[in-house]
Amino acid sequence: MEFDVSMVVRDMCIIVLAAKFLGLLARKIKVPDVAGEIIAGLLIGPSVLNLVNTSQYLSALAEIGVIMLMFSAGLSTNLRSLKKTGLKATAIAVFGVFVPLILGTVLYMCFYGFAPWGDEKFYRAVFIGTILTATSVSITAQTLKDLGRIKEEVATTIMSAAIIDDVIGIVVLTFVIGLKDPEANVARVCIFTVLFFVFVALVGYLIYRLFKYYDKKYPHTRRIPILGLALAFGLAYLADDVFGVADITGAFVAGVILCSLKDSDYINRKMDVNSYMLFGPVFFCSIGIQTDLSSINMSILWFSLAFVLVGLLSKIIGCGLISKCMRYSNRDCLKIGVGMMTRGEVALIVAQRGLQVGMLDSTFFTSVILLIIISSIMTPIILKGLYSE
Amino acid sequence: MEFDVSMVVRDMCIIVLAAKFLGLLARKIKVPDVAGEIIAGLLIGPSVLNLVNTSQYLSALAEIGVIMLMFSAGLSTNLRSLKKTGLKATAIAVFGVFVPLILGTVLYMCFYGFAPWGDEKFYRAVFIGTILTATSVSITAQTLKDLGRIKEEVATTIMSAAIIDDVIGIVVLTFVIGLKDPEANVARVCIFTVLFFVFVALVGYLIYRLFKYYDKKYPHTRRIPILGLALAFGLAYLADDVFGVADITGAFVAGVILCSLKDSDYINRKMDVNSYMLFGPVFFCSIGIQTDLSSINMSILWFSLAFVLVGLLSKIIGCGLISKCMRYSNRDCLKIGVGMMTRGEVALIVAQRGLQVGMLDSTFFTSVILLIIISSIMTPIILKGLYSE
Repeated sequence: MEFDVSMVVRDMCIIVLAAKFLGLLARKIKVPDVAGEIIAGLLIGPSVLNLVNTSQYLSALAEIGVIMLMFSAGLSTNLRSLKKTGLKATAIAVFGVFVPLILGTVLYMCFYGFAPWGDEKFYRAVFIGTILTATSVSITAQTLKDLGRIKEEVATTIMSAAIIDDVIGIVVLTFVIGLKDPEANVARVCIFTVLFFVFVALVGYLIYRLFKYYDKKYPHTRRIPILGLALAFGLAYLADDVFGVADITGAFVAGVILCSLKDSDYINRKMDVNSYMLFGPVFFCSIGIQTDLSSINMSILWFSLAFVLVGLLSKIIGCGLISKCMRYSNRDCLKIGVGMMTRGEVALIVAQRGLQVGMLDSTFFTSVILLIIISSIMTPIILKGLYSE
Repeated sequence: MEFDVSMVVRDMCIIVLAAKFLGLLARKIKVPDVAGEIIAGLLIGPSVLNLVNTSQYLSALAEIGVIMLMFSAGLSTNLRSLKKTGLKATAIAVFGVFVPLILGTVLYMCFYGFAPWGDEKFYRAVFIGTILTATSVSITAQTLKDLGRIKEEVATTIMSAAIIDDVIGIVVLTFVIGLKDPEANVARVCIFTVLFFVFVALVGYLIYRLFKYYDKKYPHTRRIPILGLALAFGLAYLADDVFGVADITGAFVAGVILCSLKDSDYINRKMDVNSYMLFGPVFFCSIGIQTDLSSINMSILWFSLAFVLVGLLSKIIGCGLISKCMRYSNRDCLKIGVGMMTRGEVALIVAQRGLQVGMLDSTFFTSVILLIIISSIMTPIILKGLYSE
């Protein structure tokens, strides 16, 4: 017992209070809660008040929180509607992933110099692109609901594309994280990425059958969400330790495996309680605590500005152009592009992972946080404008 | 990031799976889930399979779990019915606390030698008595419900007495933990214990008014349980850091402050989800992981046997005798004594606290675990016998 547990109690009190307070304040000024929670972390962290510092146990709690968030994201996937979606949404998703990926990579090289394939700096550049791939559709969905347009074709296309976007984004991340290993070569990473997905496809089907049987026999019992959570931890560990790919992929895939269960909503609600009570605030605060404001200089500010611009435009260009090819009207193309441009938790989780494996500097957190805040504020405003005229 | 987060993911997967599996197994053979979870910890810990070891972050998670469990226990207090209970239940509770406290202290001295007041060994002896004070009434309640006797006078007396027992037990623990400080003298600890309860009485009332206003304005919103949890952490920290009393007292008192809210059940349900998904299994497993089986010898086994006997008999004697004085029939006295003899989580939490402040050796965990298991098995059997004849 070499560390003082009373520190834990104190930290938790400060984190929970600060996160909730600034989260509610953020909501009042129409900024996502998450932004408030990150700023809470900045305030209580070493940058400002120095009340709470990074620590081993805080990283552990944040890690558990990330696994839960990604598991929950996977659970929200709707495989049935995904099958029906067809070519349109898939094409939009593909362009919505690869255009930001490429433009993000180019952006980093414009600022920090060109690097050839295989160079460490090249991977850092690709990682910046990877952060830009993940769409967070919740704010768009809320806006379309408010406008009463959620059942229209453009809206359902956006929703489906966002889910496929998540899946493709995860595959990209899985691959990119695999490259972190200095001994890794691209062929090896490819093989292990493919092996991982083959493994989860096979094992996943068996697990799904097992859960389905359980779900039928003991519906709405505690054991279902508990075993689901254990599956998320288990696959996350296997992904990282055996296949050398991103652990959050494992947690996401665990969610996808269980998303067709009758009780998937039930599991998700239970995960949600765990997330919002403690693990969510701890994760987002810890992002703020880790962000070192003193290392911010003009160069990083310029980069952040460019990063936000590229982040917003790359989704509009990627998703908009391919929509145009599929004969949507100009206005609908814009709606789809704008609807896909919001970023959220997943971008942060990806950035956090990059920090852990040494592919990202903590200074870039500022850029990611700015992108989340600005995109979350602008999407509803622009969408309302596009629909009102 | 000096430690590997993948360890966290692996540990969590093992703990959640093992705890759930052995918890369910325990329930099958009519032993409390908690016993299964502790044995799961023993199995995966260094004593047997050595899959998971104690670590800083695991202690932190267990600590958060304890705060949640005690907060939840406080929330379950029903102040209104407590006021109505009157003298009978209070007297039973008082004797149910002090007879085990004294007999437990004497037991330790019989085994490990007499120690005068003020000696370190004396406090260790008192701590053994303190562990014996906390009644866990859930198994008794379940049994009386099964028998259809839960509304009878004996049953309501047991329930009320058990709650008052918890409160008195907490006061005793608060005081005893205060003695841990080598510089502490009894007068100082008394003053700080009293000051703490005066402080929470004053502040508690204000906080209660604030929550009541909030509860009315935003019923069933997330902020209520979140702020409740923050209160539990806050009071736990203040109790420990400012008043030098047990932090779990702070968490328990936070629950008592909020127990009369309309939404107290709502808060408790949310805490419950957090507990059973992760923090509960982690806490009980960590008890098992910390238990060092190799240090068990014949002497500790004999002590455990005596500890279990004294634990059971002291409640029967204490509660039974005083009931007899209040003109209950012999059989009803026995029912009350047996109904009060079950021990549960709180006994473990107290023991855990003793280990942390150096008042208890981890070898004594075995005795506490045995008492919980044996009392939980015997109470329903004896109660059914007493009611059937």
